[in-house]
Amino acid sequence: MTADLTITDVRLTPVLVSDPPLLNTQGVHQPYAARLIVEIVTAGGITGFGETYGDTKYLDLARPLAEALPGRQVTDLNGLFALAATVEVDAARMGSADVGGQRGVQTADKLRLSVVSAFEVACLDALGKARELPVHALLGHKVRDRVEYSAYLFHRWEQHPGGQGESDDWGAATDPAGIVAQARRFARDHGFRSFKLKGGVYEPAEEIAAVRALAAAFPDAPLRLDPNGAWSVPTSIEVAEELRDVLQYLEDPTTGTPGMAEVASRTGVPLATNMCVTTFPEIPEAFATGAVQVVLSDHHYWGGLGRTRELAAVCRTFGVGLSMHSNTHLGISLAAMTHVAATVPNLDYACDSHYPWQSEDVLTGRLTFRDGCLDVSDAPGLGIEVDRDRLAVLHRRWLDDDGTMRDRDDAAAMRRADPGWVAPSVPRW
Amino acid sequence: MTADLTITDVRLTPVLVSDPPLLNTQGVHQPYAARLIVEIVTAGGITGFGETYGDTKYLDLARPLAEALPGRQVTDLNGLFALAATVEVDAARMGSADVGGQRGVQTADKLRLSVVSAFEVACLDALGKARELPVHALLGHKVRDRVEYSAYLFHRWEQHPGGQGESDDWGAATDPAGIVAQARRFARDHGFRSFKLKGGVYEPAEEIAAVRALAAAFPDAPLRLDPNGAWSVPTSIEVAEELRDVLQYLEDPTTGTPGMAEVASRTGVPLATNMCVTTFPEIPEAFATGAVQVVLSDHHYWGGLGRTRELAAVCRTFGVGLSMHSNTHLGISLAAMTHVAATVPNLDYACDSHYPWQSEDVLTGRLTFRDGCLDVSDAPGLGIEVDRDRLAVLHRRWLDDDGTMRDRDDAAAMRRADPGWVAPSVPRW
Repeated sequence: MTADLTITDVRLTPVLVSDPPLLNTQGVHQPYAARLIVEIVTAGGITGFGETYGDTKYLDLARPLAEALPGRQVTDLNGLFALAATVEVDAARMGSADVGGQRGVQTADKLRLSVVSAFEVACLDALGKARELPVHALLGHKVRDRVEYSAYLFHRWEQHPGGQGESDDWGAATDPAGIVAQARRFARDHGFRSFKLKGGVYEPAEEIAAVRALAAAFPDAPLRLDPNGAWSVPTSIEVAEELRDVLQYLEDPTTGTPGMAEVASRTGVPLATNMCVTTFPEIPEAFATGAVQVVLSDHHYWGGLGRTRELAAVCRTFGVGLSMHSNTHLGISLAAMTHVAATVPNLDYACDSHYPWQSEDVLTGRLTFRDGCLDVSDAPGLGIEVDRDRLAVLHRRWLDDDGTMRDRDDAAAMRRADPGWVAPSVPRW
Repeated sequence: MTADLTITDVRLTPVLVSDPPLLNTQGVHQPYAARLIVEIVTAGGITGFGETYGDTKYLDLARPLAEALPGRQVTDLNGLFALAATVEVDAARMGSADVGGQRGVQTADKLRLSVVSAFEVACLDALGKARELPVHALLGHKVRDRVEYSAYLFHRWEQHPGGQGESDDWGAATDPAGIVAQARRFARDHGFRSFKLKGGVYEPAEEIAAVRALAAAFPDAPLRLDPNGAWSVPTSIEVAEELRDVLQYLEDPTTGTPGMAEVASRTGVPLATNMCVTTFPEIPEAFATGAVQVVLSDHHYWGGLGRTRELAAVCRTFGVGLSMHSNTHLGISLAAMTHVAATVPNLDYACDSHYPWQSEDVLTGRLTFRDGCLDVSDAPGLGIEVDRDRLAVLHRRWLDDDGTMRDRDDAAAMRRADPGWVAPSVPRW
């Protein structure tokens, strides 16, 4: 008799995890970032784990979904989406903390998908454990044994304003030399062979200089630059032309599909996005106008691992490239990314991950990059183990927070250093 | 300890099954149709079944694939496609017996996909049985408990030329009254609530009259007409305008995407296809030009159930409708169709199936339509049982055949009645 797959319990555990003072066009990362850990427990005694954004608006949606799930089957992934569609989204929360569009245009449907994704991953983890199948085998099977990731470089400060939060030994990186030093450490510690620089922080000329310095230091490495839509169309075209010989792709130089299409039509540098194409309804216009050459999927945005595979099929059909985007996340999401990435034949580029910046995790052991790659686990489910003591510690931090860290607000964090700071409107340059 | 999922044996059993004298624009169905039954056996002692076309060129491809599979895992569906891509296709066989384009433009890749589909279904059946999961649960879970099918009406003769083959009690249907009588029997016996007429057999005016007669007999039933590309663009437009008030859609009135696009732009009747869009590479042009409003997926063409779900995702993304196509098939394929159809939220129309025309099957019990629908099985795997005695009888017929029935050739069958018959070139009218 095999284990009963009926869901008996769903546990939601919001946590706050340490995050370094990484800079972007909106401001700076807060000292702590909120993540939501979802546990789905079956009648057979199996627990599956998932992870997503932990901001209040995600929690608000996750709670009624968690309450409605017991009695359903962990196999019923399609039913999850139908159920989520019935959960009301508080309109007042929409657009309130979407980090200046860094997660794309926020809609109620997209918010729902970001929440459902954690439940879908938890169901897949539970199903895989219950039936002795790795998650990749539930998604069509891995086509590669290792998934390559890219080093995610940031301009950053040494410490958070006022010495808040945890400290680390990375030091500041506020100029090309600092970025190159950061890249060298990433290459040494994790073996990364491609590099992405978060841009939109300094004037374009300075970021061009940083990319040039990277190209000089790593002559054969694929390089990427992502200013999160901070530039006008003319600026985007200028930067693309300046860097066309060294960029693998340019990510979201400007905001909006029409602007991206104009830039794309006037430069030979491929454009990638996790801002103008973040949902299926945004695809037809973007593909028809040639606005993007690489879609950076994020399984949270897109509604989980199955939907990510569907996105891959759409991209394959239309000859558009595919890679993966990352926000601050823990090992559960990294394991989920790795499983789905392993199953996608047309994963054309190394994936992004913030994980090396996260000194804290909820796993019993950290996932380890070798040669910039993660091995794909063949153990049942995601192949991870959660450390309940660590989970309790990080949840305690969330409980004890006075509310300032529970919702991502990079501009508010910046105001602690620069009280007059207002998140810049785009185009910034 | 759960069952070992390693493939230890693959068995290929070509069969000939009785087929009635159904007419189409190329000629008439032969008395027997070839199907290939694929069995995949695991180290754990589980056997999974799949089914596809049995023509010689499919068998030629299936044999090396079957030989290469032992040692692989039934979970490794992605690996199946990679393996199939390495199997050489005999160019001399391409286009030699593609039934006048009724299976769309035939390419080596498409032939491979049609063969792989049976292996994919057999793997899913074996995996589901081994892990106590219905196939639909391996595909994201059913979103409906029943899948609706449409009655598939054919102009037909009472008997095959020269009294060949098996006989049945349907009688002839060569005029509108005959088609209506056929539809009434289908509605009575199986509860079908929508009707598709295979056209392209008689002059358009006669087929218009048959559809009008169906509309009078079944005033609220969705109706479809499919001449397999027999008409010119002007004829297609004329027929569409004549029948626009009663047709749910018009299927492949003319051949080729540009012609379909022209018809679509000049009529309000939705156009469906299983001829101009039968592979992923054909999608971008067809969707960009608005040539099709409904893609009729056939899991054999498209490479199996996972690929069918990917096609559904592409159609959903671009707002194009989806339903399912059928050629002569047995219960294994019908069960496979039903599982995947149950998991597709955007299955917008009742599916086609030839199954009611097949008096023979390899299952221990026939699948039964109620109210035109099939229940979706929750038993492990496909939820079917194969009758080995029946399989042996139908295989014996294939072994004993002198070669005339092993490859579909509707024009050759027609020549037994009309020695001067040549398969008409299109457009025929």
